[in-house]
Amino acid sequence: MLTLDQRFGLDRRVRLARPLRLESGAVLAVPEVAYETYGSLNADGNNAVLVCHALTGDQHVAGTHPRSGKPGWWSRLVGPGLPIDPARHFIVCANVLGGCMGSSGPASIDPATDSAYAMAFPVITIRDMVRAQAALLDHLGVDWLLGVVGGSMGGMQALDWAVAYPDRVRSVVAVATAARHSAQNIAYHEVGRQAIMADPDWAGGDYYTRERAPVAGLAVARMAAHITYLSEAGLTAKFGRRLQGRDAVSFGFDADFQVESYLRHQGLSFVERFDPNSYLYITRATDYFDLSEPHDGRLAAAFRGTRTRFAVIAFDSDWLYPTAEARRIVRALNAANAAVSFVELNSPHGHDAFLLDSPEMNRVVDGFLRAGE
Amino acid sequence: MLTLDQRFGLDRRVRLARPLRLESGAVLAVPEVAYETYGSLNADGNNAVLVCHALTGDQHVAGTHPRSGKPGWWSRLVGPGLPIDPARHFIVCANVLGGCMGSSGPASIDPATDSAYAMAFPVITIRDMVRAQAALLDHLGVDWLLGVVGGSMGGMQALDWAVAYPDRVRSVVAVATAARHSAQNIAYHEVGRQAIMADPDWAGGDYYTRERAPVAGLAVARMAAHITYLSEAGLTAKFGRRLQGRDAVSFGFDADFQVESYLRHQGLSFVERFDPNSYLYITRATDYFDLSEPHDGRLAAAFRGTRTRFAVIAFDSDWLYPTAEARRIVRALNAANAAVSFVELNSPHGHDAFLLDSPEMNRVVDGFLRAGE
Repeated sequence: MLTLDQRFGLDRRVRLARPLRLESGAVLAVPEVAYETYGSLNADGNNAVLVCHALTGDQHVAGTHPRSGKPGWWSRLVGPGLPIDPARHFIVCANVLGGCMGSSGPASIDPATDSAYAMAFPVITIRDMVRAQAALLDHLGVDWLLGVVGGSMGGMQALDWAVAYPDRVRSVVAVATAARHSAQNIAYHEVGRQAIMADPDWAGGDYYTRERAPVAGLAVARMAAHITYLSEAGLTAKFGRRLQGRDAVSFGFDADFQVESYLRHQGLSFVERFDPNSYLYITRATDYFDLSEPHDGRLAAAFRGTRTRFAVIAFDSDWLYPTAEARRIVRALNAANAAVSFVELNSPHGHDAFLLDSPEMNRVVDGFLRAGE
Repeated sequence: MLTLDQRFGLDRRVRLARPLRLESGAVLAVPEVAYETYGSLNADGNNAVLVCHALTGDQHVAGTHPRSGKPGWWSRLVGPGLPIDPARHFIVCANVLGGCMGSSGPASIDPATDSAYAMAFPVITIRDMVRAQAALLDHLGVDWLLGVVGGSMGGMQALDWAVAYPDRVRSVVAVATAARHSAQNIAYHEVGRQAIMADPDWAGGDYYTRERAPVAGLAVARMAAHITYLSEAGLTAKFGRRLQGRDAVSFGFDADFQVESYLRHQGLSFVERFDPNSYLYITRATDYFDLSEPHDGRLAAAFRGTRTRFAVIAFDSDWLYPTAEARRIVRALNAANAAVSFVELNSPHGHDAFLLDSPEMNRVVDGFLRAGE
């Protein structure tokens, strides 16, 4: 399964030089990280930008996705002539630990048993993801980062980079994110996990050698989560109560409404590209995320003494990680005397706005990164 | 299964005199309605108040619930000395059509086959529920209603009463409700239905004679729905990131957080009292609800010429049926020259606020009903 680490080109993977000790105390003996890079590291080594992906994202941030054939998930922000530009930057994006696109995760082979880890894979945290990325950067010869940029769970990683490796990060761009998972955030993730675990095909996680994976449960999890990525106003504008391919309701349980059809499609297409166990592990990692927890709830203490610059970007219709959480980060950074820019952007698209066309976001990211170069 | 219609006392059920023609065109040959009454109809027949229950409520609005032993679901509003008072009012509350507490629903026996309807039960609407209630009132000798009072889906029925039977309703109290289901409302219901239908124990709805019902799917549906009944701020205040019976996270998939434990409990306790197929039918009825639909989206037209008085009550933290939807009802009623009172109450409890202690709500309902007596 391990492909040659070519250093250039797509779909690369590296077996890290050392075992990875995780926050839980467990040790991942043979950690692997799948990644992509774009552009090249300059002679001074001062143009590296790490991009961190969200819950169900992957390392294919730009260009064409090798499996789906679609543009990379942040190809509106990363690419030639864009704020994160391979002509100027050495861009690195890695599949998170626990993921299912090549980095070590529950579907990986446990060298101790020669079969998939499944639920024997250790529970990982955002910090563990960040440490795996740091080890990847060691491998790539990147000493420090001009920027770490991420949205949603990617924003959590970006913030955590500044906490875990303050001397390796000049600038952090944290978009549509929070410094902790709220009770409501945890609640939605728990619904998704219960949907997967309630599926008999989950089989305690040991479905890799079976005929069926818990795709029905994963689809329900995705549907529930997907609603939180959109705004009520956005859903009303996009679908309202419009019917799907019919003039009147069916008085039945078909997808009468466009919004039902859309949600079902979201669920069904997701299961083709995502491992249900990975969904369990990655949602757990975000639930555990709270930068203030080691400091008795004082978030500013997490950033004390930082010399990293921060840009915090929120979208006004995002109710998953609302502006109030972004302001909490900004207040803490101010209290820590950090250099911080904050902008709340207007969008009807809810949390998903960070993945969509946003000239304002691009302008902010571009200006902020250039000012740090 | 049919108990004697005692007219007084608890847990009564009536087989309606005539078949019920439904909005779908289907006919329910032997409709049954389970109901409770409190107080008695006075000689002038002018003190009847119909209380309508929400999605998972039942006819036991006050007193002690005969199965759970707990107080009725609206015993803070209905009871001796309360705004809806058996000393002054003849109070009627009926299990909705499609329900599972005694009224005809998918678990009822289809006289044509002598087995449970299951998914052969016809899809019903809010209007069908209202018509069944009207037939019950005929049976009870109630010509007209001093008031129809309901919250959430009960508020939809209350509004629909004024549209369907304008001459039989003097006053409507619609709490925490909307005149239509939004795209987001439909989306959440669809997630719940898909969770039930994805459970192999659902078996196409034919689980009544099997060993197991789709309780796992129903629990997931309830968990997802339950989050929408609470507010983000309320969840944070009640649970925050507090752990459940432990000092540190488990690095596992137990219910580490109190909010997880709470949600799991909500799911597990719900399946003990609710029929999964009823959940499908009743959510469908609310999704189909849109009072403006027969009038090309002009809600005011639905209320044209009404002489009914309306009180519309919203809670500021309710994001399921937000204040904006209440205001839309009020604007339409104003446009129809109806007498309407509107109040937005302050509460941290989200949609559930209407079921909790709310002296302000009680004051509004009391004053409004008395002014109409």
